[in-house]
Amino acid sequence: MLILMQSDHTKAELAGVLKRVRALKLTPHVIPGKLSVAVGITGNAGALDPHLFDVLPGVREAVRVSRPYKLSGRDFRHEDTVIPIGPYRLGGPDLIVIAGPCAVESEEQMMRIAHAVKKAGAQMLRGGAFKPRTSPYAFQGLGKKGLQLLAKARKETGMPIVTEVLDQRSLDDVAEYADVLQVGARNMQNFALLKDLAKLRKPVMLKRGLSATLDEWLMSAEYLLSEGNKDVFLCERGIRAFSDHARNTLDLNVVPAVKELSHLPIIVDPSHATGVRARVAPMARAAVAAGAHGLMIEVHDRPDQALCDGPQALHPDDFAVLMRDITAIGAALGKTLAAPRYGKK
Amino acid sequence: MLILMQSDHTKAELAGVLKRVRALKLTPHVIPGKLSVAVGITGNAGALDPHLFDVLPGVREAVRVSRPYKLSGRDFRHEDTVIPIGPYRLGGPDLIVIAGPCAVESEEQMMRIAHAVKKAGAQMLRGGAFKPRTSPYAFQGLGKKGLQLLAKARKETGMPIVTEVLDQRSLDDVAEYADVLQVGARNMQNFALLKDLAKLRKPVMLKRGLSATLDEWLMSAEYLLSEGNKDVFLCERGIRAFSDHARNTLDLNVVPAVKELSHLPIIVDPSHATGVRARVAPMARAAVAAGAHGLMIEVHDRPDQALCDGPQALHPDDFAVLMRDITAIGAALGKTLAAPRYGKK
Amino acid sequence: MLILMQSDHTKAELAGVLKRVRALKLTPHVIPGKLSVAVGITGNAGALDPHLFDVLPGVREAVRVSRPYKLSGRDFRHEDTVIPIGPYRLGGPDLIVIAGPCAVESEEQMMRIAHAVKKAGAQMLRGGAFKPRTSPYAFQGLGKKGLQLLAKARKETGMPIVTEVLDQRSLDDVAEYADVLQVGARNMQNFALLKDLAKLRKPVMLKRGLSATLDEWLMSAEYLLSEGNKDVFLCERGIRAFSDHARNTLDLNVVPAVKELSHLPIIVDPSHATGVRARVAPMARAAVAAGAHGLMIEVHDRPDQALCDGPQALHPDDFAVLMRDITAIGAALGKTLAAPRYGKK
Amino acid sequence: MLILMQSDHTKAELAGVLKRVRALKLTPHVIPGKLSVAVGITGNAGALDPHLFDVLPGVREAVRVSRPYKLSGRDFRHEDTVIPIGPYRLGGPDLIVIAGPCAVESEEQMMRIAHAVKKAGAQMLRGGAFKPRTSPYAFQGLGKKGLQLLAKARKETGMPIVTEVLDQRSLDDVAEYADVLQVGARNMQNFALLKDLAKLRKPVMLKRGLSATLDEWLMSAEYLLSEGNKDVFLCERGIRAFSDHARNTLDLNVVPAVKELSHLPIIVDPSHATGVRARVAPMARAAVAAGAHGLMIEVHDRPDQALCDGPQALHPDDFAVLMRDITAIGAALGKTLAAPRYGKK
Repeated sequence: MLILMQSDHTKAELAGVLKRVRALKLTPHVIPGKLSVAVGITGNAGALDPHLFDVLPGVREAVRVSRPYKLSGRDFRHEDTVIPIGPYRLGGPDLIVIAGPCAVESEEQMMRIAHAVKKAGAQMLRGGAFKPRTSPYAFQGLGKKGLQLLAKARKETGMPIVTEVLDQRSLDDVAEYADVLQVGARNMQNFALLKDLAKLRKPVMLKRGLSATLDEWLMSAEYLLSEGNKDVFLCERGIRAFSDHARNTLDLNVVPAVKELSHLPIIVDPSHATGVRARVAPMARAAVAAGAHGLMIEVHDRPDQALCDGPQALHPDDFAVLMRDITAIGAALGKTLAAPRYGKK
Repeated sequence: MLILMQSDHTKAELAGVLKRVRALKLTPHVIPGKLSVAVGITGNAGALDPHLFDVLPGVREAVRVSRPYKLSGRDFRHEDTVIPIGPYRLGGPDLIVIAGPCAVESEEQMMRIAHAVKKAGAQMLRGGAFKPRTSPYAFQGLGKKGLQLLAKARKETGMPIVTEVLDQRSLDDVAEYADVLQVGARNMQNFALLKDLAKLRKPVMLKRGLSATLDEWLMSAEYLLSEGNKDVFLCERGIRAFSDHARNTLDLNVVPAVKELSHLPIIVDPSHATGVRARVAPMARAAVAAGAHGLMIEVHDRPDQALCDGPQALHPDDFAVLMRDITAIGAALGKTLAAPRYGKK
Repeated sequence: MLILMQSDHTKAELAGVLKRVRALKLTPHVIPGKLSVAVGITGNAGALDPHLFDVLPGVREAVRVSRPYKLSGRDFRHEDTVIPIGPYRLGGPDLIVIAGPCAVESEEQMMRIAHAVKKAGAQMLRGGAFKPRTSPYAFQGLGKKGLQLLAKARKETGMPIVTEVLDQRSLDDVAEYADVLQVGARNMQNFALLKDLAKLRKPVMLKRGLSATLDEWLMSAEYLLSEGNKDVFLCERGIRAFSDHARNTLDLNVVPAVKELSHLPIIVDPSHATGVRARVAPMARAAVAAGAHGLMIEVHDRPDQALCDGPQALHPDDFAVLMRDITAIGAALGKTLAAPRYGKK
Repeated sequence: MLILMQSDHTKAELAGVLKRVRALKLTPHVIPGKLSVAVGITGNAGALDPHLFDVLPGVREAVRVSRPYKLSGRDFRHEDTVIPIGPYRLGGPDLIVIAGPCAVESEEQMMRIAHAVKKAGAQMLRGGAFKPRTSPYAFQGLGKKGLQLLAKARKETGMPIVTEVLDQRSLDDVAEYADVLQVGARNMQNFALLKDLAKLRKPVMLKRGLSATLDEWLMSAEYLLSEGNKDVFLCERGIRAFSDHARNTLDLNVVPAVKELSHLPIIVDPSHATGVRARVAPMARAAVAAGAHGLMIEVHDRPDQALCDGPQALHPDDFAVLMRDITAIGAALGKTLAAPRYGKK
């Protein structure tokens, strides 16, 4: 922590700052400057709250020198986290692709699409049973029935299933069926839900909130890690900026940033990031080239009949072409599409 | 709904669009243009989902002509909603000020501040018992004990209390004690929580999400209204933009926009919008001048000891000056600070 | 400047940093921390470029402790700048209102509107002779002819005129006629133009760029001040954020921020900030309540025939109502609409 | 154009709208709706200005159905623009890489780096002679001397040179030396400069403004095309959003969007988009995978001594690795790094 005094601070105000630092059993270092004075602080075990100091008279600003997160950062754990999910491992050299429809709509739809994405090379299956919808009048998902259909698709194809948990009330049901629990963008700072998830011992995929900074995202991961759930991975799905040519602005820059600052795996969802089918493949390829550990992609064989987000769903044939392309791009970077690592689940 | 065809669409594609419109029992109107063709649709009872059409081949875009919300819009209810809260009425000509500390910290702190804000003219009392915090290591609130202290402050001062409900699990407790249930910015699209709140018959204050458009905000209000809870009001508290000179960017432009499009009352929280004490009063004055129905302001008599958001809390003396200023500004616009309307509660 | 070392920096890397600091004739202060080491620097006359240090191996970040601007900041000049413009003074306790049409369209239009805004109490007259337009096919202004019409309106009404300078080529012409040279939002970082303006001795109104931070804005003012043009004032006109309910997002928060950090006057343009007539008055009132030194407002008596921005122009009758309202709000804050101070020009 | 009437419009207001449409020699089509009425307009040659209609009483909104640009859009020219630059062609299947230092600093520096980037496979050379700097106290470039050094480097290496034109005054000089004239992000809407550039017959690289929408970007290209300069290409270099983990937010989504809507080539500048050396290569690879026609990359062999933007410059060795990687990624997508097409210039 570095405390910057106002240019017209008084001696008494500086003394007040030093007193507070010492009261916290920390050591102040006064650094005189041309226009003002700064006070460096040492001796703290973790990050300090700037508000301990910037509320004092004469203080212009308290600048955090350490990062606010611990367990999700590289300073406390240097090696990459690698998460076993069914027969796969996410976070290492393998590329993992999670594919499937936006929402589970019917048994027939789910089985058709599950087989199609498996054939094209996807390792895991997605599908929403509980859907967060902007409008109360929109399709809200099949609920528990959807979870059972996902489980049936897993049984038929052997693919682990990834599905969203919307609230505390349905958490137990979702946890019973899912291999990976997805936290959606709108729930990234639903701290009550995060605390409940932290107590489980199931992998959690934490999507980035539409207006979340990287620090805030890693702090939400910290909620999960701090209670002992180590199997957390991140998913970039586009942020909200002024751009109006796409549903969201995909922030691929965050992929190398996450890999530098955190040990947690990061994948990318180009479907929600673009909202438009024709741009899903370019952004999926770009995500792999940027170094993402995997992708999450919406696929539907009858997108014009989809109950949710049809315009962004890839047709299975286009998905197969994309899988071929990312295999080639991955190869150029020394990555391979994952095959099962340690035996069938 | 207006459907814009691509400039190189085929006759078959146009026929496909007309077929779908008619399949929905609606009427298509073909409008030939210089470069392309548009299809207007009439006959629909409510808003149509653009995705019913933009997934069809040959379609460039489906433009919504009606707004997506109904019950929260002026088209379905022209007169302003006025909400009785204790002896006050929010949404009419009166100015309502909700004031108090960020968090309930102790009985002594709560009583001191409650009396101070009442003396300065505030009508309602705020205080967080359950606090959403970016960091799992930060103070999370006193919980149920905090609610009981709020109730005690209400008993002593007669002020209705406004406090945040964080999750479904604590909802019953909060609803038992609070006069107004506050939904925080991070929960604006926690649809599960909104559905539960919609079943109550208590006023709900819905804060705007950090990256919520006006349509999304009113759609969240729609979740509450569509289940029968009519006593909903909105609270602008700053959005996330690129600006770095303040914690958030207060979007006062939204005040006249809400009043034009919706019948719901809107108040402004200048404390979270600025994050800095010295800017709270200017933004509070500006909010009143812009036409807000009220304000929500954080006040603390010992801000350097506050457990939460001390730097943005006004001292009671400064709050009293602000109350005098907004009384004068309100008078210039024909508004008065509310006094009890229909007897003590 | 504070240099933060990476947590795994080597002794040689730290030595390299100290060597560079001393090579610049500055003094390093090593501050050991729990996880890493920071180096404070003292002895510098002005702001240092962080890139002098963050390019060195082992350095995580170089944090600027001083602000990048000098002449536009309070540290170098504490008292408010007050700019004489014709018989008025901008930047002191007076409220100044600049009003008129978006563009000069004809002699008749200009005279009609000039008299109308004068009658309502405006002190200065605006009107664009050179118009920056997003489309090459839109009306680009009357050019020199427009300047002459503005001069004629000044002669008739006695009002100083404010008009935009678009480029270096038309600068001399505009400077010959205008009392205040307006730099538009799109030119805020047209440094070549700023350098030319800095050599003049005419007041400059510097609008904020659509995506300019406060630091960048004050740095652009610095271009003007550093060459000796002291009569600079700022104009907030809305920034670009994700919001879609208004043309721009008016950032009134920046008004108290500017007044805290800079001695330069700041006014607000609610017309461009909203783009919609019905929201101009609420935002104009809010700007005055927030503490702005003045307003710039578009007025047109036949807005449906305006060649530019008709939808945001106030009718003279509505403008007169607004003037009455801001007079009352100003009075509540101890401000008065300016009357001439030191005789007719 | 589609005109949406307010829900409470009067018959007289609707008649007024129809009258105006017919006065413009266009055809109105009334479309009755559940809540209101819409009026479609046909018969117009180009895009109509919405303000012709939304200023009329009773009108809620005028929605543009055609796009505002013509010459830069696909509707008026379907086939891709391919621009010959020296012995290369930009916009076709070839990948083009423009590399070099941020600023020309000295003859020795320029020659060293020119040879290094040529050896690694870059086809064109960049280097700023006139530099736009946020601060008036920062290095502003060598000016004409810099242009002469660039010309010398071209003579020695055979590489076409790309350099920025900052203002009208230096335009002739820059045009005399450069093979491609670069318009920087801050000048994207400097319409006076664009008009001057439009009269030249030299390729122009138009960078996207920090807060420019795709429509605005293509409208600025339209300024160039409408005066007859056909050789225009676009460069995405990051936009301004709330993210603070990188200097800018690279919007790769815009690459497929541009290719869909426009025939103009688009390249990506990952150096300014990230501002941090370690993220340049991931974003450069991603840009190629997303389908960009080329890259512009800053390279410096002594970045810690660079006078400008050292932290984002790649070392020549790292640049060579990147060239190898993008060759492999390009190959996976059927693209090859360009070799000269039609003989030495």
